[in-house]
Amino acid sequence: MSAAGLGLNPGPETAWIAALFDSVRAGQGEACVHDTLLTIGPGDDAAAFETPPGCRVVVSTDASVEGIHFRREWMTWETIGYRAAASALSDLAAMAAVPIGLLLSVALPPELDASASASLGRGVGEALGVMGGELLGGVLVASPGPVMVDAVVVGHADTPVGRGGARAGDEVWVTGALGGAAAAVADLRAGLEPIPSARQAFERPVPRVAEGRWLAEETSLNALIDLSDGLSRDAGHIATASGVRLELEFERIPVHPAVEPYLESRAGRRLLLGGGEDYELLLTAPAGRVKPVRGGFEDRFRLALTRVGRVVAGAGVVVTDAGGTAVPVEGGYDHLGLT
Amino acid sequence: MSAAGLGLNPGPETAWIAALFDSVRAGQGEACVHDTLLTIGPGDDAAAFETPPGCRVVVSTDASVEGIHFRREWMTWETIGYRAAASALSDLAAMAAVPIGLLLSVALPPELDASASASLGRGVGEALGVMGGELLGGVLVASPGPVMVDAVVVGHADTPVGRGGARAGDEVWVTGALGGAAAAVADLRAGLEPIPSARQAFERPVPRVAEGRWLAEETSLNALIDLSDGLSRDAGHIATASGVRLELEFERIPVHPAVEPYLESRAGRRLLLGGGEDYELLLTAPAGRVKPVRGGFEDRFRLALTRVGRVVAGAGVVVTDAGGTAVPVEGGYDHLGLT
Repeated sequence: MSAAGLGLNPGPETAWIAALFDSVRAGQGEACVHDTLLTIGPGDDAAAFETPPGCRVVVSTDASVEGIHFRREWMTWETIGYRAAASALSDLAAMAAVPIGLLLSVALPPELDASASASLGRGVGEALGVMGGELLGGVLVASPGPVMVDAVVVGHADTPVGRGGARAGDEVWVTGALGGAAAAVADLRAGLEPIPSARQAFERPVPRVAEGRWLAEETSLNALIDLSDGLSRDAGHIATASGVRLELEFERIPVHPAVEPYLESRAGRRLLLGGGEDYELLLTAPAGRVKPVRGGFEDRFRLALTRVGRVVAGAGVVVTDAGGTAVPVEGGYDHLGLT
Repeated sequence: MSAAGLGLNPGPETAWIAALFDSVRAGQGEACVHDTLLTIGPGDDAAAFETPPGCRVVVSTDASVEGIHFRREWMTWETIGYRAAASALSDLAAMAAVPIGLLLSVALPPELDASASASLGRGVGEALGVMGGELLGGVLVASPGPVMVDAVVVGHADTPVGRGGARAGDEVWVTGALGGAAAAVADLRAGLEPIPSARQAFERPVPRVAEGRWLAEETSLNALIDLSDGLSRDAGHIATASGVRLELEFERIPVHPAVEPYLESRAGRRLLLGGGEDYELLLTAPAGRVKPVRGGFEDRFRLALTRVGRVVAGAGVVVTDAGGTAVPVEGGYDHLGLT
């Protein structure tokens, strides 16, 4: 898309934005499923779109900061863009919402090669291509140092599923296998090359957008969250918001192959229980409601759906081993890096 | 609001976010006009809200970066927060949209005093209190250096007014007086204290949200934009998006008192034509359609509404003096700071 096509004056800022938007569209391919909803697009003061009748609009934002959430030397600019968009889109999955689109705020140091922002844009587009949604707009500003990417997602849902509906008696289920992304980060921090499946889990997580919607339609979800902070913290978010206690069984938790060899160690358990950014879904549903659709889910999405515990009266999260002994829960991803 | 009220686990990150959100609400006062729309609020994975039937949803984002868009020594944290929110809300004014709410992404260096983020939040709340809208959510992350604030606004409009509808024969009108914010910045850069009215224009701009809606309802707007980049650049945005030429008459342009004494100089003209961040509205409408409501507008809003030119076939923007000579148009605020 040219600067003129964006409805902007020519100029350095405009050229940068146009190049960034071009890259997003190039990365996205032909997956623009919501074209008809968009009445005024990027390049105006704001984007405007219609929403399907009777639905609710769902919005969320997620920020990635260089030196805090990523390091340039760990991954390509394309991966940085993909992960920023995927992380925000995962918040829509966690509400059982359909993505409408994304707004992108990027702060870049002016000395950065223009090909870096193009790569970053392609990565954002790739995530939109996989999960669905339009580029609704955004801003590109200068940064005096670190690269920052803020991705804002907008979606719609007939009945958004929040964190606050878990009830005593519910079962707790999780999609996929956990700890892969954290295992990759641990390797990278140690200067080691992660195994390919762990690197993939870290670099190209696939937010469970379609899976979340399917589960909301086919079963009866009381609470839903995506695993961005780590199982123990995110289970804690449901417990706090719902005013209940989540009891998880350690042996039932599905383990990523990269973590499997280390499960006897404290570090391994920490990766599994505290490792963030797997972007799988954690849900609670009334007893017996998920099992009948489990086979259909696993066939359709080629993804495990595993019961990992139950909801009881009380507060907080406990993880117990086969003997009933509590497994220490440590860590959990704190996005401020303060713990 | 406590961390528990936000549905989040206790912890350092949660405490920071809760404090920030508390501050926004404290700054906002009792102006939460859209409570009934919000079905799931901040603290969940995303906010969810209903929209009035038949309307369109309008979204925009705006980023402020320390060292690029503001300097700590120029203003208080409260002002930094207010301006970040006001700048984003002005994009809703520029679409003749009603604010629903705002999402806030803030990156702060961990060594920063907690009172700074509280002040920043109060400023955001103050802007929401003045212009309307709920706090819909947000994130607080660590920054390795500069403070960054990204404000995302969501609104609704029956008929959003974009930049691309100006037609040859339209009149061009502007609200308020221009150049005050730029005059304050020029003084601050020179180490001088701006006159109070200029400092006010810079620190507490009032986006023309109510004015934009009123104009869209009472007259017939073809194009609408807010003056964030400066008159010449923003007029150029309309010209480019609409495929027309805007002819502005220099003597008609309403001048802020801080710029008045310098109008004979090149620097003064540059403040008037190129100075950004006044957040007034520039609009085009068919000839004769604005004048009948002008008195009503000025009485209601205590704000000037001035015809400054016309739309003709062609491209670009020209500014002419009383003798018909072209006035050089320089500058214009480039948010990348590259020009």
